Amino acid sequence: MKAYRKVDFPAAKVRRFLEPGPIVLVSSAWRGETNIMTMGWHMVMEFEPSLIGCYIWDQNHSHEMIRRSKECVINIPTLDMASVVVGIGNSTGAEIDKFAKFKLTAVRGTKVSAPLIKECYANFECKVVDASLVKRYSLFVLQVVKAHVAVSPRYPRSIHYRGDGVFMVSGRHINLRSRFRPEYL
Amino acid sequence: MKAYRKVDFPAAKVRRFLEPGPIVLVSSAWRGETNIMTMGWHMVMEFEPSLIGCYIWDQNHSHEMIRRSKECVINIPTLDMASVVVGIGNSTGAEIDKFAKFKLTAVRGTKVSAPLIKECYANFECKVVDASLVKRYSLFVLQVVKAHVAVSPRYPRSIHYRGDGVFMVSGRHINLRSRFRPEYL
Repeated sequence: MKAYRKVDFPAAKVRRFLEPGPIVLVSSAWRGETNIMTMGWHMVMEFEPSLIGCYIWDQNHSHEMIRRSKECVINIPTLDMASVVVGIGNSTGAEIDKFAKFKLTAVRGTKVSAPLIKECYANFECKVVDASLVKRYSLFVLQVVKAHVAVSPRYPRSIHYRGDGVFMVSGRHINLRSRFRPEYL
Repeated sequence: MKAYRKVDFPAAKVRRFLEPGPIVLVSSAWRGETNIMTMGWHMVMEFEPSLIGCYIWDQNHSHEMIRRSKECVINIPTLDMASVVVGIGNSTGAEIDKFAKFKLTAVRGTKVSAPLIKECYANFECKVVDASLVKRYSLFVLQVVKAHVAVSPRYPRSIHYRGDGVFMVSGRHINLRSRFRPEYL
Protein backbone atom coordinates (compact mmCIF):
# COMPACT_ATOMS: atom_id res chain seq x y z
CA MET A 1 0.00 0.00 0.00
CA LYS A 2 1.07 3.57 -0.62
CA ALA A 3 2.12 6.24 1.84
CA TYR A 4 0.60 9.51 0.69
CA ARG A 5 1.77 12.88 1.90
CA LYS A 6 -1.35 14.88 2.69
CA VAL A 7 -2.30 18.48 3.23
CA ASP A 8 -5.38 20.28 4.46
CA PHE A 9 -8.09 20.59 1.84
CA PRO A 10 -11.22 22.81 1.83
CA ALA A 11 -14.19 20.87 3.25
CA ALA A 12 -16.49 22.67 0.78
CA LYS A 13 -14.63 21.00 -2.11
CA VAL A 14 -14.66 17.33 -1.11
CA ARG A 15 -17.21 16.72 -3.90
CA ARG A 16 -14.12 16.52 -6.14
CA PHE A 17 -13.43 13.11 -4.60
CA LEU A 18 -16.87 11.90 -3.50
CA GLU A 19 -19.17 12.89 -6.37
CA PRO A 20 -17.46 10.44 -8.78
CA GLY A 21 -18.80 7.68 -6.51
CA PRO A 22 -15.84 5.69 -5.15
CA ILE A 23 -16.19 2.96 -2.59
CA VAL A 24 -14.99 4.45 0.69
CA LEU A 25 -13.84 3.15 4.05
CA VAL A 26 -15.60 4.56 7.09
CA SER A 27 -13.64 4.46 10.32
CA SER A 28 -15.12 5.01 13.75
CA ALA A 29 -14.33 4.77 17.46
CA TRP A 30 -16.44 4.19 20.53
CA ARG A 31 -15.37 3.39 24.07
CA GLY A 32 -11.81 2.39 23.21
CA GLU A 33 -12.81 0.24 20.25
CA THR A 34 -12.21 1.17 16.61
CA ASN A 35 -13.74 -0.21 13.45
CA ILE A 36 -13.77 0.14 9.67
CA MET A 37 -16.55 -0.57 7.17
CA THR A 38 -16.83 -0.28 3.41
CA MET A 39 -19.49 2.06 2.02
CA GLY A 40 -20.74 2.45 -1.52
CA TRP A 41 -24.02 4.24 -0.87
CA HIS A 42 -23.25 7.90 -0.24
CA MET A 43 -23.94 11.25 -1.83
CA VAL A 44 -22.94 14.88 -1.62
CA MET A 45 -25.82 16.94 -0.20
CA GLU A 46 -24.39 20.44 0.20
CA PHE A 47 -21.16 22.38 -0.41
CA GLU A 48 -21.20 24.63 2.64
CA PRO A 49 -21.70 23.32 5.20
CA SER A 50 -20.12 20.30 3.56
CA LEU A 51 -22.84 17.65 3.90
CA ILE A 52 -22.65 13.98 2.90
CA GLY A 53 -25.53 11.52 3.05
CA CYS A 54 -24.46 7.98 4.01
CA TYR A 55 -26.36 4.73 4.12
CA ILE A 56 -25.11 2.69 7.07
CA TRP A 57 -27.20 -0.39 7.68
CA ASP A 58 -28.10 -1.16 11.28
CA GLN A 59 -26.64 -4.64 10.87
CA ASN A 60 -23.18 -3.13 10.40
CA HIS A 61 -21.11 -3.21 13.57
CA SER A 62 -20.14 0.41 12.80
CA HIS A 63 -23.75 1.58 12.87
CA GLU A 64 -24.04 1.78 16.64
CA MET A 65 -20.52 3.13 17.05
CA ILE A 66 -21.24 6.03 14.69
CA ARG A 67 -24.71 6.62 16.09
CA ARG A 68 -23.38 6.84 19.64
CA SER A 69 -20.11 8.69 19.03
CA LYS A 70 -21.76 10.96 16.40
CA GLU A 71 -18.48 10.94 14.50
CA CYS A 72 -16.61 9.03 11.82
CA VAL A 73 -14.00 9.45 9.10
CA ILE A 74 -14.62 8.86 5.40
CA ASN A 75 -11.41 7.52 3.85
CA ILE A 76 -10.78 7.08 0.12
CA PRO A 77 -8.88 3.89 -0.71
CA THR A 78 -7.14 3.36 -4.04
CA LEU A 79 -6.69 0.43 -6.41
CA ASP A 80 -3.65 -0.89 -4.54
CA MET A 81 -5.96 -1.44 -1.54
CA ALA A 82 -8.66 -3.36 -3.44
CA SER A 83 -8.11 -6.66 -1.64
CA VAL A 84 -8.06 -4.86 1.72
CA VAL A 85 -11.34 -3.15 0.84
CA VAL A 86 -12.92 -6.51 0.04
CA GLY A 87 -11.50 -8.05 3.21
CA ILE A 88 -12.92 -5.23 5.33
CA GLY A 89 -16.31 -5.58 3.66
CA ASN A 90 -16.37 -9.32 4.23
CA SER A 91 -15.60 -9.37 7.93
CA THR A 92 -17.13 -7.85 11.02
CA GLY A 93 -15.69 -5.61 13.68
CA ALA A 94 -17.65 -7.66 16.20
CA GLU A 95 -15.06 -10.41 15.71
CA ILE A 96 -11.80 -8.78 14.67
CA ASP A 97 -9.74 -5.59 15.00
CA LYS A 98 -9.70 -4.47 11.38
CA PHE A 99 -6.77 -2.07 11.75
CA ALA A 100 -4.64 -4.94 13.05
CA LYS A 101 -5.98 -7.61 10.72
CA PHE A 102 -5.48 -5.55 7.56
CA LYS A 103 -2.24 -3.85 8.71
CA LEU A 104 -3.68 -0.37 8.48
CA THR A 105 -2.32 2.61 10.39
CA ALA A 106 -4.68 4.60 12.58
CA VAL A 107 -3.83 8.30 12.63
CA ARG A 108 -5.31 10.70 15.16
CA GLY A 109 -7.80 13.20 13.76
CA THR A 110 -7.89 16.87 14.66
CA LYS A 111 -11.65 17.40 15.05
CA VAL A 112 -13.00 13.91 15.78
CA SER A 113 -11.98 10.96 17.92
CA ALA A 114 -12.45 8.46 15.09
CA PRO A 115 -9.12 7.42 13.55
CA LEU A 116 -7.98 8.32 10.03
CA ILE A 117 -6.62 5.52 7.84
CA LYS A 118 -3.11 6.58 6.86
CA GLU A 119 -2.89 4.36 3.76
CA CYS A 120 -5.88 6.03 2.07
CA TYR A 121 -5.61 8.85 -0.49
CA ALA A 122 -7.89 11.20 1.46
CA ASN A 123 -9.49 11.40 4.90
CA PHE A 124 -12.58 13.43 5.71
CA GLU A 125 -13.31 13.92 9.40
CA CYS A 126 -17.08 13.99 9.88
CA LYS A 127 -19.68 14.80 12.54
CA VAL A 128 -23.19 13.37 12.42
CA VAL A 129 -25.37 16.47 12.09
CA ASP A 130 -28.72 14.78 11.46
CA ALA A 131 -29.69 11.32 12.66
CA SER A 132 -33.43 11.76 12.15
CA LEU A 133 -33.42 9.63 8.97
CA VAL A 134 -31.47 6.73 10.45
CA LYS A 135 -34.47 4.76 11.56
CA ARG A 136 -36.44 5.11 8.31
CA TYR A 137 -33.60 4.97 5.77
CA SER A 138 -30.38 4.06 7.63
CA LEU A 139 -29.32 7.49 6.37
CA PHE A 140 -26.81 9.52 8.35
CA VAL A 141 -26.28 13.13 7.34
CA LEU A 142 -22.62 13.95 8.01
CA GLN A 143 -20.78 17.23 7.95
CA VAL A 144 -17.15 17.17 6.85
CA VAL A 145 -15.37 19.27 9.46
CA LYS A 146 -11.80 18.68 8.32
CA ALA A 147 -10.35 17.23 5.11
CA HIS A 148 -6.89 15.83 4.41
CA VAL A 149 -5.95 15.02 0.80
CA ALA A 150 -2.83 13.60 -0.84
CA VAL A 151 -0.62 16.10 -2.63
CA SER A 152 -0.01 13.68 -5.50
CA PRO A 153 -1.38 12.25 -7.75
CA ARG A 154 -3.91 14.94 -8.61
CA TYR A 155 -6.75 12.42 -8.63
CA PRO A 156 -6.87 9.03 -6.90
CA ARG A 157 -7.06 5.75 -8.79
CA SER A 158 -10.33 4.98 -7.00
CA ILE A 159 -12.47 1.86 -7.23
CA HIS A 160 -16.23 1.96 -7.72
CA TYR A 161 -18.42 -0.95 -6.73
CA ARG A 162 -21.05 -2.47 -9.05
CA GLY A 163 -22.12 -5.39 -6.87
CA ASP A 164 -21.39 -9.08 -7.55
CA GLY A 165 -17.74 -8.62 -6.62
CA VAL A 166 -17.02 -6.31 -9.57
CA PHE A 167 -15.31 -2.93 -9.26
CA MET A 168 -14.86 -0.26 -11.91
CA VAL A 169 -11.46 1.43 -11.72
CA SER A 170 -11.38 5.18 -12.32
CA GLY A 171 -9.99 6.05 -15.73
CA ARG A 172 -8.72 9.13 -17.51
CA HIS A 173 -10.01 12.67 -17.09
CA ILE A 174 -11.49 15.13 -19.55
CA ASN A 175 -11.64 18.85 -18.94
CA LEU A 176 -14.68 20.56 -20.46
CA ARG A 177 -14.33 23.71 -18.41
CA SER A 178 -14.33 25.96 -21.47
CA ARG A 179 -17.85 24.81 -22.31
CA PHE A 180 -19.27 25.85 -18.95
CA ARG A 181 -20.88 29.15 -18.12
CA PRO A 182 -18.69 30.71 -15.40
CA GLU A 183 -21.56 30.75 -12.91
CA TYR A 184 -22.17 27.01 -13.45
CA LEU A 185 -18.66 25.95 -12.53
CA MET B 1 -24.28 9.51 -30.34
CA LYS B 2 -24.93 5.81 -30.11
CA ALA B 3 -28.13 3.87 -30.60
CA TYR B 4 -28.28 1.17 -27.98
CA ARG B 5 -30.56 -1.84 -28.16
CA LYS B 6 -32.11 -2.21 -24.72
CA VAL B 7 -33.90 -4.86 -22.75
CA ASP B 8 -35.79 -4.97 -19.47
CA PHE B 9 -33.53 -5.12 -16.45
CA PRO B 10 -34.41 -5.95 -12.81
CA ALA B 11 -35.13 -2.75 -10.87
CA ALA B 12 -33.53 -4.30 -7.77
CA LYS B 13 -30.19 -4.43 -9.60
CA VAL B 14 -29.82 -0.87 -10.90
CA ARG B 15 -27.08 -0.34 -8.31
CA ARG B 16 -24.82 -1.96 -10.90
CA PHE B 17 -25.02 1.26 -12.89
CA LEU B 18 -25.72 3.91 -10.23
CA GLU B 19 -23.47 2.93 -7.33
CA PRO B 20 -20.29 3.70 -9.35
CA GLY B 21 -21.47 7.33 -9.32
CA PRO B 22 -21.95 8.46 -12.94
CA ILE B 23 -23.38 11.80 -13.89
CA VAL B 24 -26.95 11.13 -15.01
CA LEU B 25 -29.59 12.95 -17.01
CA VAL B 26 -32.99 13.31 -15.37
CA SER B 27 -35.92 13.74 -17.75
CA SER B 28 -39.37 14.89 -16.70
CA ALA B 29 -42.73 16.01 -18.08
CA TRP B 30 -45.46 18.26 -16.76
CA ARG B 31 -48.45 19.73 -18.56
CA GLY B 32 -47.18 19.06 -22.06
CA GLU B 33 -43.68 20.35 -21.39
CA THR B 34 -40.59 18.14 -21.08
CA ASN B 35 -37.19 18.89 -19.62
CA ILE B 36 -33.79 17.36 -18.89
CA MET B 37 -31.29 18.18 -16.16
CA THR B 38 -27.88 16.82 -15.22
CA MET B 39 -27.49 15.26 -11.78
CA GLY B 40 -24.34 14.21 -9.96
CA TRP B 41 -25.68 14.02 -6.41
CA HIS B 42 -27.55 10.73 -6.06
CA MET B 43 -27.26 7.51 -4.06
CA VAL B 44 -28.72 4.04 -3.88
CA MET B 45 -30.85 3.71 -0.73
CA GLU B 46 -32.43 0.26 -1.01
CA PHE B 47 -32.45 -2.78 -3.30
CA GLU B 48 -36.09 -3.76 -3.02
CA PRO B 49 -38.05 -1.62 -3.36
CA SER B 50 -35.40 -0.05 -5.55
CA LEU B 51 -34.85 3.35 -3.91
CA ILE B 52 -32.61 6.17 -5.12
CA GLY B 53 -31.97 9.40 -3.25
CA CYS B 54 -31.57 12.42 -5.53
CA TYR B 55 -30.59 16.00 -4.82
CA ILE B 56 -32.59 18.30 -7.09
CA TRP B 57 -32.14 21.95 -6.22
CA ASP B 58 -35.25 24.12 -6.16
CA GLN B 59 -33.58 26.51 -8.59
CA ASN B 60 -33.59 23.80 -11.26
CA HIS B 61 -36.46 24.17 -13.72
CA SER B 62 -36.99 20.40 -13.35
CA HIS B 63 -37.57 20.67 -9.60
CA GLU B 64 -41.18 21.82 -9.83
CA MET B 65 -41.94 19.50 -12.76
CA ILE B 66 -40.79 16.46 -10.78
CA ARG B 67 -42.39 17.61 -7.56
CA ARG B 68 -45.75 18.10 -9.28
CA SER B 69 -45.75 15.11 -11.65
CA LYS B 70 -44.16 12.87 -8.98
CA GLU B 71 -42.26 11.09 -11.76
CA CYS B 72 -39.03 11.26 -13.71
CA VAL B 73 -36.56 9.09 -15.62
CA ILE B 74 -32.90 8.63 -14.66
CA ASN B 75 -30.88 8.18 -17.86
CA ILE B 76 -27.22 7.15 -18.02
CA PRO B 77 -25.26 9.01 -20.69
CA THR B 78 -21.91 7.79 -21.98
CA LEU B 79 -18.65 9.46 -22.99
CA ASP B 80 -19.85 10.14 -26.55
CA MET B 81 -22.52 12.39 -25.01
CA ALA B 82 -20.14 14.42 -22.81
CA SER B 83 -20.64 17.70 -24.65
CA VAL B 84 -24.42 17.19 -24.65
CA VAL B 85 -24.29 16.57 -20.89
CA VAL B 86 -22.40 19.83 -20.37
CA GLY B 87 -24.78 21.68 -22.69
CA ILE B 88 -27.80 20.40 -20.75
CA GLY B 89 -26.22 21.35 -17.45
CA ASN B 90 -25.43 24.85 -18.68
CA SER B 91 -28.84 25.83 -19.99
CA THR B 92 -32.30 26.03 -18.53
CA GLY B 93 -35.54 24.40 -19.58
CA ALA B 94 -37.25 27.69 -18.77
CA GLU B 95 -35.74 29.05 -22.01
CA ILE B 96 -35.24 26.11 -24.37
CA ASP B 97 -36.62 22.71 -25.32
CA LYS B 98 -33.63 20.54 -24.45
CA PHE B 99 -34.73 17.50 -26.47
CA ALA B 100 -34.86 19.69 -29.60
CA LYS B 101 -31.80 21.77 -28.83
CA PHE B 102 -29.56 18.75 -28.17
CA LYS B 103 -31.13 16.49 -30.81
CA LEU B 104 -32.19 13.87 -28.31
CA THR B 105 -34.98 11.38 -28.91
CA ALA B 106 -37.81 11.17 -26.39
CA VAL B 107 -39.14 7.63 -26.01
CA ARG B 108 -42.39 6.87 -24.26
CA GLY B 109 -42.05 5.12 -20.90
CA THR B 110 -44.19 2.21 -19.77
CA LYS B 111 -44.85 3.19 -16.15
CA VAL B 112 -44.35 6.96 -16.12
CA SER B 113 -45.28 9.88 -18.35
CA ALA B 114 -41.77 11.33 -18.28
CA PRO B 115 -39.85 10.57 -21.50
CA LEU B 116 -36.84 8.26 -21.73
CA ILE B 117 -33.77 9.52 -23.59
CA LYS B 118 -33.11 7.04 -26.36
CA GLU B 119 -29.43 7.90 -26.82
CA CYS B 120 -28.54 6.96 -23.24
CA TYR B 121 -27.12 3.56 -22.19
CA ALA B 122 -29.85 2.94 -19.61
CA ASN B 123 -33.18 4.42 -18.56
CA PHE B 124 -34.75 4.00 -15.15
CA GLU B 125 -38.41 5.01 -14.86
CA CYS B 126 -39.00 6.44 -11.37
CA LYS B 127 -41.83 7.51 -9.09
CA VAL B 128 -41.32 9.97 -6.26
CA VAL B 129 -42.17 7.92 -3.17
CA ASP B 130 -41.08 10.38 -0.49
CA ALA B 131 -41.01 14.16 -0.89
CA SER B 132 -40.80 14.94 2.83
CA LEU B 133 -37.09 15.77 2.62
CA VAL B 134 -37.37 18.09 -0.36
CA LYS B 135 -37.79 21.26 1.65
CA ARG B 136 -34.95 20.57 4.08
CA TYR B 137 -32.44 18.89 1.77
CA SER B 138 -33.76 19.14 -1.82
CA LEU B 139 -33.76 15.36 -1.50
CA PHE B 140 -36.26 13.32 -3.50
CA VAL B 141 -36.59 9.64 -2.68
CA LEU B 142 -37.37 7.84 -5.93
CA GLN B 143 -38.43 4.28 -6.59
CA VAL B 144 -37.27 2.70 -9.83
CA VAL B 145 -40.40 1.06 -11.22
CA LYS B 146 -39.02 -0.05 -14.59
CA ALA B 147 -35.48 -0.33 -15.91
CA HIS B 148 -34.22 -0.55 -19.49
CA VAL B 149 -30.53 -1.33 -20.08
CA ALA B 150 -28.40 -1.70 -23.21
CA VAL B 151 -27.55 -5.26 -24.21
CA SER B 152 -24.00 -4.27 -25.12
CA PRO B 153 -21.44 -3.24 -23.96
CA ARG B 154 -21.65 -4.99 -20.60
CA TYR B 155 -20.81 -1.77 -18.74
CA PRO B 156 -21.23 1.79 -19.99
CA ARG B 157 -18.31 4.14 -20.58
CA SER B 158 -19.81 6.55 -18.05
CA ILE B 159 -18.56 9.98 -17.01
CA HIS B 160 -18.25 11.07 -13.39
CA TYR B 161 -18.20 14.71 -12.42
CA ARG B 162 -15.57 16.22 -10.10
CA GLY B 163 -16.61 19.88 -10.37
CA ASP B 164 -14.66 22.65 -12.13
CA GLY B 165 -15.58 21.24 -15.54
CA VAL B 166 -13.61 18.01 -15.03
CA PHE B 167 -15.05 14.53 -15.59
CA MET B 168 -13.50 11.18 -14.74
CA VAL B 169 -14.17 8.55 -17.41
CA SER B 170 -14.94 5.04 -16.19
CA GLY B 171 -12.03 2.68 -16.70
CA ARG B 172 -11.40 -1.06 -16.62
CA HIS B 173 -13.09 -3.56 -14.34
CA ILE B 174 -11.71 -5.99 -11.79
CA ASN B 175 -13.60 -9.00 -10.55
CA LEU B 176 -12.87 -9.92 -6.94
CA ARG B 177 -15.89 -12.16 -6.55
CA SER B 178 -13.83 -15.12 -5.38
CA ARG B 179 -12.72 -13.13 -2.31
CA PHE B 180 -16.28 -12.46 -1.17
CA ARG B 181 -18.29 -14.53 1.26
CA PRO B 182 -21.31 -15.78 -0.68
CA GLU B 183 -23.74 -14.01 1.66
CA TYR B 184 -21.92 -10.68 1.11
CA LEU B 185 -22.30 -10.70 -2.67
